[in-house]
Order: sequence, then structure tokens, then C-alpha cells
Amino acid sequence: MTPAIRGTIDPAAHLARLRERAPLIHNITNLVAMNPMANVLLALGASPAMAHAREEAAEFAALADALTVNIGTLSPHWVAAMEEAAEAARLTGRPWVLDPVAVGATRYRREAGRRLLEHRPTVIRGNASEILALEQQGSGGRGVDSSDSSDSTETAEQAAISLARRTAAVVAVTGEVDLVTDGRRLARVPGGHALMPRVTTLGCALTGVVAAFLVDTDDPFAATAAALACYGEAGRRAGTTATGPGSFAVAFLDALYALDHDQLAILTALEVTDAP
Amino acid sequence: MTPAIRGTIDPAAHLARLRERAPLIHNITNLVAMNPMANVLLALGASPAMAHAREEAAEFAALADALTVNIGTLSPHWVAAMEEAAEAARLTGRPWVLDPVAVGATRYRREAGRRLLEHRPTVIRGNASEILALEQQGSGGRGVDSSDSSDSTETAEQAAISLARRTAAVVAVTGEVDLVTDGRRLARVPGGHALMPRVTTLGCALTGVVAAFLVDTDDPFAATAAALACYGEAGRRAGTTATGPGSFAVAFLDALYALDHDQLAILTALEVTDAP
Amino acid sequence: MTPAIRGTIDPAAHLARLRERAPLIHNITNLVAMNPMANVLLALGASPAMAHAREEAAEFAALADALTVNIGTLSPHWVAAMEEAAEAARLTGRPWVLDPVAVGATRYRREAGRRLLEHRPTVIRGNASEILALEQQGSGGRGVDSSDSSDSTETAEQAAISLARRTAAVVAVTGEVDLVTDGRRLARVPGGHALMPRVTTLGCALTGVVAAFLVDTDDPFAATAAALACYGEAGRRAGTTATGPGSFAVAFLDALYALDHDQLAILTALEVTDAP
Repeated sequence: MTPAIRGTIDPAAHLARLRERAPLIHNITNLVAMNPMANVLLALGASPAMAHAREEAAEFAALADALTVNIGTLSPHWVAAMEEAAEAARLTGRPWVLDPVAVGATRYRREAGRRLLEHRPTVIRGNASEILALEQQGSGGRGVDSSDSSDSTETAEQAAISLARRTAAVVAVTGEVDLVTDGRRLARVPGGHALMPRVTTLGCALTGVVAAFLVDTDDPFAATAAALACYGEAGRRAGTTATGPGSFAVAFLDALYALDHDQLAILTALEVTDAP
Repeated sequence: MTPAIRGTIDPAAHLARLRERAPLIHNITNLVAMNPMANVLLALGASPAMAHAREEAAEFAALADALTVNIGTLSPHWVAAMEEAAEAARLTGRPWVLDPVAVGATRYRREAGRRLLEHRPTVIRGNASEILALEQQGSGGRGVDSSDSSDSTETAEQAAISLARRTAAVVAVTGEVDLVTDGRRLARVPGGHALMPRVTTLGCALTGVVAAFLVDTDDPFAATAAALACYGEAGRRAGTTATGPGSFAVAFLDALYALDHDQLAILTALEVTDAP
Repeated sequence: MTPAIRGTIDPAAHLARLRERAPLIHNITNLVAMNPMANVLLALGASPAMAHAREEAAEFAALADALTVNIGTLSPHWVAAMEEAAEAARLTGRPWVLDPVAVGATRYRREAGRRLLEHRPTVIRGNASEILALEQQGSGGRGVDSSDSSDSTETAEQAAISLARRTAAVVAVTGEVDLVTDGRRLARVPGGHALMPRVTTLGCALTGVVAAFLVDTDDPFAATAAALACYGEAGRRAGTTATGPGSFAVAFLDALYALDHDQLAILTALEVTDAP
């Protein structure tokens, strides 16, 4: 049975809000992602700031419009700063997004993931393996870039819904399956391109884009779905000219920059259904 | 009243000196800028080296021809290494450049900026907000990429001249206004392109270029103005083919590499006036 | 006297094995190289993972198929994690590659190089200055990107053979001279392009490629030579369209991605001779 459509989301309206606001996004992210993430945010129209010292992380989080925390290249001082920044964001009412990179791979990551969840992220964005690991806190995925092919779409969807209900966060699963849920509603997001997983940290950079879309909205579920739709459309456009991952990365930044209302308007509106 | 012209600067002669020398530039810079900074220096004809451990920072600074220090992503061990490297550069007579990224944003940055100034940088390069914050040690700019639009050109110029006089450093303000002063002389530098602020850390990378131009010259004021002029001309050229920030970044490195005497000769010579 | 040919190596067969396996490569590398190294590995068909905390470095090394350790931007916690990861790789029979960046430049690097050698790398890859410094543990090279022009090809070759015999590692020297030896056999590898040294950390990224070729083979000497041959061929192809280091870096990733059996088949087979 096909679930009934409960509404639609207009990505173009969300992008217009982002560009009008040009929000400052504070990112405590991994060392591989820092540069691409900053470039993606600048290309789209947001302003990135990276700062990870405990001496200023909380102060920085309160200056910014939103925060992202990514556990890709952890170390103890960074984890402490992540926790303090996340708590500062929570206490001052700013949205923050958790990116649980390879959370199932080591004991250290599972522990970091568990502690960060206690600071109540607004959104959790990961691939299917990561969302499964975070939900199960059991055995995790292998590697950091690929989703386990044995994770069926259905399993990932169930884990995302369950995690969203348990944490009261919006959960976004990206990769072979792209979906967003707040535990009650569900949206599948089209777009993207086969070369995207061949460019490092495009997923991490998307976490920053989600944060930028969360600023000045009361509906993080819709904003997250809109962010994924814009990102996917830019990827689709970049893929039309790229001849490999090098040229794809360049074309993708140009496509994010060029993304406009007319390009997004031709997308089928994102349909929202009830979460099963 | 238009100030009288006191002389001119020939960027091409400075670039020729840099390429003849291929100086080794030691950079303790932020985690976002490391890669683009190294690529910018290599494209132009200098040799970059990054090393930040206290165990070797001073030794490295004394091996290199010049040093840069950038406070974009601080932490305590890095600040200590910055101070030791800056002191080593000062004691061995090597030029060093301070890049006070977002120095006004947090207490930690203000303190780091204050301490680094005590080691007497040869040049300070920042955007208008950062130069204002460093001079005022008062309320700083918001964000790290954009200059406060309320900072008029005149205010930034006055702050730069005042900071130069107080610290005996050459001060370069880049962004909407591009000027260089040693407190006595002033040069405005044309060039650049609207896409430059859409590519992350091009300002940070410029700090490395300034350091490379400082090697083997007795006039850091002229060398800094020449560095900005070459950078701006490469930006202008890159802008003629770019279709967004992705292709701009690629074209910019190619333009730095291709920059030659004939291209620079067609520039109007940089005019130097008395600082008001 | 021309040494007698002892056999040949087929790079295409090694590349086919890599793509079939898509190995997970754990890299503790420098902060400049992280992003390009990840992109190079993804473009070629391997899966990169970066993790440097002592809390998980050994656990991560045992999850991955191979490890690389690069001392470009050292600090004490990183060195400790490098040692633990290298020991974990050795104990679990996984190949690991040492990249001794600027090992001769400071006392701290010489010490780190000496300690890492004790964990018995499978392969050591460096430029001529670095291999000389590691062998001599004497005066090192200046800078990190250029090989000392006074290091003749013959001197580098002798140092590589001597280092290979002393450490039982395969030694690869890249730069003006490209050769691989296990102390008994020697292969010279053609290819590459004059723009490669103008793009930062392409040498560091090659270290990851070597590690990826080492997975599932009993002949690390042949696998290393094959890795260098594939890298050189991609560089040669990228050079046919690039107009500077920016466009070269983009074309190089596309070329690694497109590299296939037919392209490699036209290469002269790599000839192996006895080491003198």
C-alpha cells in the first residue's frame, strides 16, 4: 500500500531564506572535511567558521547561528569541545547537527556518539551504516564512505524512524537511500549522482548545509529535506558535465553557487508521508 | 585634496625576485587553509612547509626564509608553538606575517592576538574587521569571512595607519578595501574579483604570498603591496573564465602559475602616497 | 654495463586486483595531505579512513586492510598513535607504508623516523633527500617538496638499496628519479609530469596508493612498482590537458578514475633488474 501524501516541501523557498540570511555556521568537523565544507557553505551563500579549542568552542557556538559536530577525526580535546559547543547551542536555542562518521567502527566512536546524543541534536545526518550503528549501539559499519550493501533500504528506514523517536531529532539518511524523518513524517529525496561518493567528505559538507537551512525555521524536518533536495539537484547538474571525480567536485561548487529558484522549481515537489 | 604621489612600486620586479629565490615559507596556519595555502605558494614559485609542534616550531622557523602565523583554528599547544616560532624568526632576523583571523570574535583570540603582537610581526594582514579589532582590542567582527559593512573605508584606513605606527609593522587590509601602510606611506592596490570571497581561505593563502615576497628585500611595505597586486591580478584573470567558485579556484592557481612580467607590466604602476 | 633484465611487472593486473578488492586504507597523515589523499584513493577505487587518536588508532589499524604513516605535521600525541597503529599493523600482518616527510629537517623528525622504523614498515616511500636522510640519519634535506639537486640519481639509488637491506622494507624513491628496490631487485618507473611537484601532497597521496596496491599480494616490491607506474601514467595523461597546477590537480583525479587496462597496456612493461 502506498502511504498517503500528507503535504509537500518547496526547496526553493528554503534556499531563498538561507541566502537572505547568510547564516554563520560554526563547525567542529573532521580534518579531511574542513576545507570542502567551508567551500560548499560559501558557494551556497552561508558563512562558515571552524573553531575547536575548548577555550572558545562554547563562546563561538553562541556567536553563530547554528552548529555542526562531526566525529570523523576525533581526539580527546576535540570531543570535550564538541560537548561544550553542543551544550551551548542547546542552551541558547540554536540548532545543531550531529554527523556520526563511522560511529560503529571503534569503541571510542561509539562512546563519543553516545555522549553527543545526550546534548540533543536537532538533526542527525549519516549514511545507513552510521544510523544503524547509532540506533543499535551494536556492531557498526566497516569503513567510513560506503554503506553496507546488506543494509536494505527498509532496515535503514526503520532505524531512522526509531532513532528519531528515541532522540526527538530529525534523522537524515543519505547514500544509496536518501530519506528524512522526524519519527512521525517521512520524505524521500531524489537527486545526486554516482560520482558523489567518489569525492571525499561531500556527505560531511552536506551536514553544514543542513545546519544552514535550519536557521530561522520552526520545521527542521522540512528544512532538512529541502537541504538534501538542493544538494542532490546540484549534484545532478554537476554530473551532466563531469568526466571524473576531479571535475565533478569543481562543477558541484559551481552548481551550488548557480542554484536558483527556476532550477529548483522544475523539481517534483518533495512529498511527505506518514512514517510507518 | 588628492595626496601627492611619492613614488611607485613595480610588482613584476618583486615577483621576479621571488621566483629567482624560490623561498621556503614556514606556515603555522589554520586547518582549513593549509592545503590551499601550500598550493598557492607552489603555483607562484615558492616552497611551503607546515609544522606546528612546539618540539620543532622554532627550529623550523630558523630553517625557513620567512614565517606566517594564522590564528584561525587555535588551540593551546599551537599558540605556544606560534609564539616560539615568531620569537625564533624575530631573533634570527627573518620576516614573519601575522594573520589575525576573527581576532575580535572571542576572548581567547583577543588574548592570542595580543601575545603574538609582542613578537613584532613584520607584516599584519587581515580584513577590515580584524584590523579594527586588533587596533581597538575592543569589540570584534562577527564571522571570519566577511568584513563588517559598517566599517567604512576611511575607518579601516585610519585603524591600519594607527596599528602600523603602534607596532612598527606594515599593515595590509584586504577585502572590500585593499590597502597597505607602514604608518608613513600608503598604497591602494587594485584587482581581485567578486568570486574571491566565495573561495575559502584565499585571504589566508595571501598571507603566505606576502611572506614569500618579503624574503630578500629591505622594503616590506613595497613587497607587501607588490604581493597584493600580483594576487589581485591573478584573481582578475581567473574571474574572466570562472563560472562559479569551483572553477574560480582552479583558474586562480593556473593564473598564479602563469603570471609573468608582461601581464604585470600592463598594470598601472602602484602609486604610493603619504599616510594622512 | 647494462644490468640483465630479471623479469617484468604488469601494472594493469595490480590495478585490477585493487579495484576488485576496494581495500580500506587507514592513514595517519599530515594535515595538508588529508583531503587530497582521500580523493586520490577514492578516484582510484580504494576506500580511505583517517583516524589519529591513541584511543582508537590501533583498533582502526586492525580494521583496515593497510596503514600509512606520514610525519609531515607531527605532534607528540600523533607520534604515539603512529607507533601504536604501526605496531598493530605489524602484529596483525597488515602491510604499512612509512612516508618520512622532511625527516632530516629537525631533531624531532629524525627521532620520529628512527622510532617508526623499529615497527618495520613494509614499504618506505620518500623523495631522494628523505631516503638519504633516513639512511644516513645525518644531515637532511631542506624543505619538504624539492629533492636536493646535488643528490645524484646514483647516490639516491645507493641509499635506497642500502636502506632496503638494513630494514627489510621495500624502498621507493620518487621525484626526479623514480625507482623501487627491495635490496635485491630494482625497477625504474617512467611517467609523471613537470606539474606534479607544483601540486601539494601528491607525493603523500601516492603513499596511500602504494598501501592500496599492497593488499592481497605476496610481492610488495612488484606492487609498489605497479602503484608508481599507474600514478605516473595518470600524471602523464593529466599533463596533456592541464594549463597550470590548478587544472592539473583536477585532471589528475579524473585520470586516476579513468585509468584502465587498455591505457596501461600500452606502457612498456616495467623491467626488473638485479640491484647492484
